[in-house]
Amino acid sequence: MSLIVVGSMAFDQIETPFGKSDRIVGGAATYIAWSASNFAKPVNQISVVGGDFPKEELQALQDRGVVLEGVQIKEDEKSFFWAGKYHMDMNSRDTLDTQLNVLANFVPVVPDSYQGSEFLMLGNLVPSIQHSVINQMKTRPKLIVLDTMNFWMETAMEDLEKVLKDVDVLLINDSEARELSAQYSLVKAAREIMKMGPKYLVIKKGEHGALLFYDDEVFVAPALPLEDVFDPTGAGDTFAGGFIGHLARTKDISFENMKTAVIVGSAMASFCVEKFGNTRLKEISKEDIDNRIRQFVNLVNFDIQLI
Amino acid sequence: MSLIVVGSMAFDQIETPFGKSDRIVGGAATYIAWSASNFAKPVNQISVVGGDFPKEELQALQDRGVVLEGVQIKEDEKSFFWAGKYHMDMNSRDTLDTQLNVLANFVPVVPDSYQGSEFLMLGNLVPSIQHSVINQMKTRPKLIVLDTMNFWMETAMEDLEKVLKDVDVLLINDSEARELSAQYSLVKAAREIMKMGPKYLVIKKGEHGALLFYDDEVFVAPALPLEDVFDPTGAGDTFAGGFIGHLARTKDISFENMKTAVIVGSAMASFCVEKFGNTRLKEISKEDIDNRIRQFVNLVNFDIQLI
Repeated sequence: MSLIVVGSMAFDQIETPFGKSDRIVGGAATYIAWSASNFAKPVNQISVVGGDFPKEELQALQDRGVVLEGVQIKEDEKSFFWAGKYHMDMNSRDTLDTQLNVLANFVPVVPDSYQGSEFLMLGNLVPSIQHSVINQMKTRPKLIVLDTMNFWMETAMEDLEKVLKDVDVLLINDSEARELSAQYSLVKAAREIMKMGPKYLVIKKGEHGALLFYDDEVFVAPALPLEDVFDPTGAGDTFAGGFIGHLARTKDISFENMKTAVIVGSAMASFCVEKFGNTRLKEISKEDIDNRIRQFVNLVNFDIQLI
Repeated sequence: MSLIVVGSMAFDQIETPFGKSDRIVGGAATYIAWSASNFAKPVNQISVVGGDFPKEELQALQDRGVVLEGVQIKEDEKSFFWAGKYHMDMNSRDTLDTQLNVLANFVPVVPDSYQGSEFLMLGNLVPSIQHSVINQMKTRPKLIVLDTMNFWMETAMEDLEKVLKDVDVLLINDSEARELSAQYSLVKAAREIMKMGPKYLVIKKGEHGALLFYDDEVFVAPALPLEDVFDPTGAGDTFAGGFIGHLARTKDISFENMKTAVIVGSAMASFCVEKFGNTRLKEISKEDIDNRIRQFVNLVNFDIQLI
């Protein structure tokens, strides 16, 4: 169950209607690793951080089975920083500040020891950088999953289209699916996007759950109705970590098993939003995860006998 | 399986991004009756129409097992009329015109032959009129379901609070749940609303499905991802018709069976939006309905084995 995770490891500063965080550890690859390492080990991490990134955070990841050989540490530089503010509906957010720092000149290098990994999770990042990781793999992984965002559709669409041709699964949210496809209906959007390369498409809808498309089929996963969504930062990455973690653990990339992976991802994301940053992900046990997955089973389970 | 349905029978004129209808037959009780009569007969209808309401529409309902003894026909007056316009997201709409006509002085009368009905579906209407129907029942029905809308929260909140004390199930949409409870979180909203009277609460979320709350439990029903939502008018009423129709057919008002009723309601609503007005509801067969319900089973079905 060899898994490579690529993405940012960074600092975030977050405002929500419930409060404001200090500068806390974040980044797509951080969340993905915390989430995926519940299911698959080792997680072969590829990222870049500055000298300001806490050594104890790196140690905590290593203790969970995250291999950091592919994480470049630039002692004299600063880590990527993002500050944002969420509104009441938690589905929209404003970026208050972005400092690229080490990400500005990031050239990922796949260590030899990562070669042969069967699963590749490309967290949200510059599309050409995501593509360079695929191109460095001597054997194509069994499954390549890519996460991206509207920003790249607006600034690097050509590169995004190129990397999409080489991936198996795309994870995006509903507004991004509409933007990428120029279709309002998500069913039509999915059809257009699957023509661009990915055989599978997951559309994340936050509190409204997620949709998994494959060929002419569709699966609907619920979100757990929560009393409070405290901080949605990293929820999409945590979803991605649960999704790829389940697939890497089971080594089964059938549509049926991808449905389950979407549920596992949704369950992991439901933890992430309960506290600021990755606090909750650090607390939860295997038992917590099992119980949450059982809640998802109960959430959608019904009996019907046709007349 | 005796069922009473109360609500408007009316004319609508609808604009959507896909087209504009003529003056077509609509009204909450019309949609509910078309939907419920697939499952439970007779449907004992209570409403009021003007002399302009097409006799062939009344006949078509009678042919389906809808009893019209409780439908007042005011030959010299005009039926209720509503004109509205939907935007691209189909979840928001503007009212362009409302002509109360016969509804202005509607005093519903429960015919003797309807007494003893076990299921009562109160479609969206003035809360005091909904209440008067409950008060006319000599024996309290086994289950009373009420649909309402934000308009009554803003203009007749006191009457709405009174009738809510006397019902078992409330059906509203997400923005109405937030308005009624003054809570943003739907979990918190549900808890507040269930304190107002209803033991069960269904929150309809349009293309995002529906939530069923009872005590500390919650069930999530998907919506069928559709290529086009042609006209959402009546979808909520059609949902209500499928919901109460299933319960009246099975005579089982357990939480478990209400989950199934929410799925049946969702399946019926998914037909309604495929064409203007109630056109699609008039076309569909038992086989179409069974197939659609099977689609809902497949939509959410997944297997999971905990590690």
